[in-house]
Amino acid sequence: MLSKNQQKNIRQLSRKKHRQESGLFVAEGEKLVHELLNSGWKADQIYSTEPLQQTPYTLVHLSEMKKISHLSSPSPILGVFHLPHYDSSAVNHQEFSLVLDNIADPGNLGTIIRLCDWFGIKNIFCSSNSVDCFNPKVVQSTMGSIARVRCHYVDLHTLIEDCDAKVFAATLDGSSHYKESFPSQGLLVMGSESHGISEALLEKIDHRITIPSFGGRGGAESLNVATATAILLGEIFRP
Amino acid sequence: MLSKNQQKNIRQLSRKKHRQESGLFVAEGEKLVHELLNSGWKADQIYSTEPLQQTPYTLVHLSEMKKISHLSSPSPILGVFHLPHYDSSAVNHQEFSLVLDNIADPGNLGTIIRLCDWFGIKNIFCSSNSVDCFNPKVVQSTMGSIARVRCHYVDLHTLIEDCDAKVFAATLDGSSHYKESFPSQGLLVMGSESHGISEALLEKIDHRITIPSFGGRGGAESLNVATATAILLGEIFRP
Repeated sequence: MLSKNQQKNIRQLSRKKHRQESGLFVAEGEKLVHELLNSGWKADQIYSTEPLQQTPYTLVHLSEMKKISHLSSPSPILGVFHLPHYDSSAVNHQEFSLVLDNIADPGNLGTIIRLCDWFGIKNIFCSSNSVDCFNPKVVQSTMGSIARVRCHYVDLHTLIEDCDAKVFAATLDGSSHYKESFPSQGLLVMGSESHGISEALLEKIDHRITIPSFGGRGGAESLNVATATAILLGEIFRP
Repeated sequence: MLSKNQQKNIRQLSRKKHRQESGLFVAEGEKLVHELLNSGWKADQIYSTEPLQQTPYTLVHLSEMKKISHLSSPSPILGVFHLPHYDSSAVNHQEFSLVLDNIADPGNLGTIIRLCDWFGIKNIFCSSNSVDCFNPKVVQSTMGSIARVRCHYVDLHTLIEDCDAKVFAATLDGSSHYKESFPSQGLLVMGSESHGISEALLEKIDHRITIPSFGGRGGAESLNVATATAILLGEIFRP
């Protein structure tokens, strides 16, 4: 039986402030919880409406699960996990990494994390005004990839100034991404859904690339940031 | 002043049954409504909280707009439009078209419609159990591309049997999409978010393609259907 206070504490983990104060976040669903546990993430508590094997857990009634779940239809298992400590200075810059400037939509960030996992990108650098990757909606939409891809919230200006490798910016006025030859190390910078990459940041980047539109005049004016990232990564990792 | 009955009729357009009975659908937001009007779509009524020029409209109070809007934060303009009549038998098969088998998520379909608009794909064939493209959430997430890309709800088995061009299926066990040479006409079939392409349909398709994963063992098991479509279209339209 969960006390009202315990229920409140778990629900409040939907807010960044409470995650930072408590050092905890929530992940729901069998696949996601097991993927985090199997990847060595430390659980504070696992709540389940059904008996579990191997993992220590607290059995809760479905009515209780509904009170602590962040999903509209709760799954049988909810894990409260400790936030990890990532050291962004230890990132290996001999690989390709992604940079996100002011990405606001949790679903977009989650989809991009899953995409990076598919292409073997281990690190994403996010501007501090981007949505937090431990927001429950982001965690859920990563489909488990949050266990393997690290989001670092850093000052992007410093990151790009200090970067020795090639930096690419996705814009609407660059050269065709099909004509670019991508090195095996570098950064790809994607901008916000509504405003693109901030002007001040864009000034620091030499290579602007664009996905050519084949729709002609009057077609779509832009692409969703996750689908644009998908197309560019598809080309960057082209064997 | 809108009557309770009028308000109810507009709200009910969130349901396919009511859209089909009335022959109407809802689009919200200045850009979307104007894009439909400018593309010649016929409005039944335009509701606005602010005076409009050129278009006939009904001025409504914000409190009324909140009652008819399908958005959590209503925009100043809402249009009720007539459903179009598409003739799928008139589709030009000399181009590349997309086929969607059992796509359930409105956001995914909307994003895919926007993506097709970018690549100049004019027709999408959807299985009848796919989400309706005039669902308000789909319409909103197309960002206006619904005005230009046509979704035809047809029997996919017949479509594929009757197709003279090459048909590609996106699966997890095909050959690398990077190694395929894509013709300028054909069909690309994408499957449902949770179950992929149905077995019976897959049996009718000769060419199975897969986006290779670079994440190695233990990486993401699959991609979101909209991002997978993005990567494949990026390659299909590679100049």
